[in-house]
Amino acid sequence: MQGGLIVQKYGGSSVANIERIQKVAERIVNYKKKGFSLVVVVSAMADTTDELIEMADKINPEAPEREMDMLLSTGEQISVSLLAMAVHKLGVEAISFTGGQVGIITDGNYTKARIVKIQAEKIREELKKGRVVIVAGFQGITIAHDITTLGRGGSDLTAVALAKELAANECEIYTDVEGIYTTDPRIEPKAQKIKMITFDEMLEMASLGAQVMQPRSIEVAKKFNVPIHVRSSFSQNPGTMIVKEAVKMEGAVITGVTLNKNEAKITICDVPDRPGAAAHIFKELSEGGVNVDMIVQNVSHTRKTDLSFTIPKADVSKTIKITKKTAKEIGAGEVLQDEDIARIAVVGVGMKSHPGVAADMFETLAENKINIEMISTSDISISCIIKKKFVETAVKELHEKFKLAK
Amino acid sequence: MQGGLIVQKYGGSSVANIERIQKVAERIVNYKKKGFSLVVVVSAMADTTDELIEMADKINPEAPEREMDMLLSTGEQISVSLLAMAVHKLGVEAISFTGGQVGIITDGNYTKARIVKIQAEKIREELKKGRVVIVAGFQGITIAHDITTLGRGGSDLTAVALAKELAANECEIYTDVEGIYTTDPRIEPKAQKIKMITFDEMLEMASLGAQVMQPRSIEVAKKFNVPIHVRSSFSQNPGTMIVKEAVKMEGAVITGVTLNKNEAKITICDVPDRPGAAAHIFKELSEGGVNVDMIVQNVSHTRKTDLSFTIPKADVSKTIKITKKTAKEIGAGEVLQDEDIARIAVVGVGMKSHPGVAADMFETLAENKINIEMISTSDISISCIIKKKFVETAVKELHEKFKLAK
Repeated sequence: MQGGLIVQKYGGSSVANIERIQKVAERIVNYKKKGFSLVVVVSAMADTTDELIEMADKINPEAPEREMDMLLSTGEQISVSLLAMAVHKLGVEAISFTGGQVGIITDGNYTKARIVKIQAEKIREELKKGRVVIVAGFQGITIAHDITTLGRGGSDLTAVALAKELAANECEIYTDVEGIYTTDPRIEPKAQKIKMITFDEMLEMASLGAQVMQPRSIEVAKKFNVPIHVRSSFSQNPGTMIVKEAVKMEGAVITGVTLNKNEAKITICDVPDRPGAAAHIFKELSEGGVNVDMIVQNVSHTRKTDLSFTIPKADVSKTIKITKKTAKEIGAGEVLQDEDIARIAVVGVGMKSHPGVAADMFETLAENKINIEMISTSDISISCIIKKKFVETAVKELHEKFKLAK
Repeated sequence: MQGGLIVQKYGGSSVANIERIQKVAERIVNYKKKGFSLVVVVSAMADTTDELIEMADKINPEAPEREMDMLLSTGEQISVSLLAMAVHKLGVEAISFTGGQVGIITDGNYTKARIVKIQAEKIREELKKGRVVIVAGFQGITIAHDITTLGRGGSDLTAVALAKELAANECEIYTDVEGIYTTDPRIEPKAQKIKMITFDEMLEMASLGAQVMQPRSIEVAKKFNVPIHVRSSFSQNPGTMIVKEAVKMEGAVITGVTLNKNEAKITICDVPDRPGAAAHIFKELSEGGVNVDMIVQNVSHTRKTDLSFTIPKADVSKTIKITKKTAKEIGAGEVLQDEDIARIAVVGVGMKSHPGVAADMFETLAENKINIEMISTSDISISCIIKKKFVETAVKELHEKFKLAK
């Protein structure tokens, strides 16, 4: 395989209509002509999945998940067959497959299945014949031959898993932006495209609000050390490499500034300071399916303390209901909610060896009279909850402070 | 299985939109509540297949047939999963399957595959669990796991083949008309719904222009003696039973009058009257993919004769091209075409024992000053080619003559 094997993944916006499918076919053929072997993973054409979900919702809002997967998996089957036709039209042999046909075996957790193994003989055979292999992303099949889907970010996962299984030389994720940026360019026009970022940093950034890739596929890429190239299907520019260890410019302590306006803060007042109180609260929330994010509880000097945590905004009413009940049971006080907050974070492996980052961050916020409501840290990130109205200022100032605009 | 097993097939118009899918679900649930076991075969929602073909044509008018099948098979996968959701909504367990998942194994002739065998264990298992089994029509899978489609009338074929394999008590084909009529009700409002018709008669009627069912699935039904009930999904009325031997009303010699305006007549003048001339002509046409229907050649009293045959109108230009070349090679004369014709036929097993039918037919046409251009007969049908402008009169007069309006 002269030139080596590349796994490419094209998202829904990259194959949104016939013209874009033709553009993707041209890109594939160009790679092929340079001597590369290609496995191409494709999402459903933009809007297709939403249209299918809308129909299903009208028929049965509580449709069996098995049937949802049966329905949704058609979206990718349509885009892969159309793309194979487009590649053929350009004189290059291509063959399309469903997830099941190329042996992407999953467990039976419909709508969010996990890949158990990949039996990639079929792909290898077709690559040997010199064909471009086009695989439906986002889907697999159980050992009982039921169709499953992998949930959000599923097509990225298909690509990363195939790149690992086939020992590909590169895994390219094509999307509608040019790569990962130091922060959201819609807020800070000076945001720079990051050339190289580590899996760990990318994981933090994805969890903290950067929406280009889901944490799940990055975790798999990290686990199997599959380098990922995130780039745009609308340009020829190189994008961002996500790798195990990134070569950094000297002095670049911070890689990016993230923001997330989709969380709400819940505070339970006067929680009795005794063992098991917090456990009780978070067990109930977990059983209620609420994904709790940051948790902050101060050491109390009295026998009672306030407990704050953040959750996705969509879960507010459910959370309030559960929490009020639990608060009563444990003898705590009032439950407060605040949807007017934002989370801002700085991410970078460099901070491991630069203890001053937290201080710099807090100082920058203080200089701009931005009050910090909650703080949470990891090895390579520091997050603050602030009032939502300050988020643009905070992003710009931190971007400046950590010299991300160069 | 109290009540027995019924295979039902719903065509594209019966599942054209969400409301109709819900209606079909209600019908299924009613049967289920009466104690029947149900296997339901579904076509793609009306227009879906056409929309997919349109996209494919824009991308690659000569798309590989394997990819066409990959694409088109999504249509039925969408309708079966939506129907399963609709049945669930009504409180009855249902499970949908692709053709491949229920072991409909075909050969590799993409776009017109033939069913090789059916491995129906999966269906039997699900029926045992008391579930309604909903199967995507029109499609199968090769032993190499490539998706195939069965071509025109493919969903009917799926239903008939499953009814045979599962030894179903009945096979219902739901469509947008109430059954098979003595003739086209749009031309003769007195046309009557036929209560019972034999496989042979139905085969003749389908070949001669009745469009409710394709000959292919009737052939299979005849071969395995699977009785078919053709009826409407928009009413509760019984439709037409297609059976091995029909119980006829006394004196009903003719079952129906068919018409076909989609043929053209080609005449090759002055064909040399020597062995091999006709063979040469029709071999060339067959190799060119032209489906020749009626052929008439008179005994010649000179050394030359005229040869006429009919073909589908869509094939006229291709046929003229091939025929002109062949005519030259064999030393024949001019090639004439006439698209202004129609075929009219009377069909009925009764004519086997009533030799006067042909005479009655010719006399009726003559009385109405309708010239007969070609005649062709089978065991149970007599066809005449006449000028197209006479077709309505001919249908009405023959319908009257053979007392089909009762």
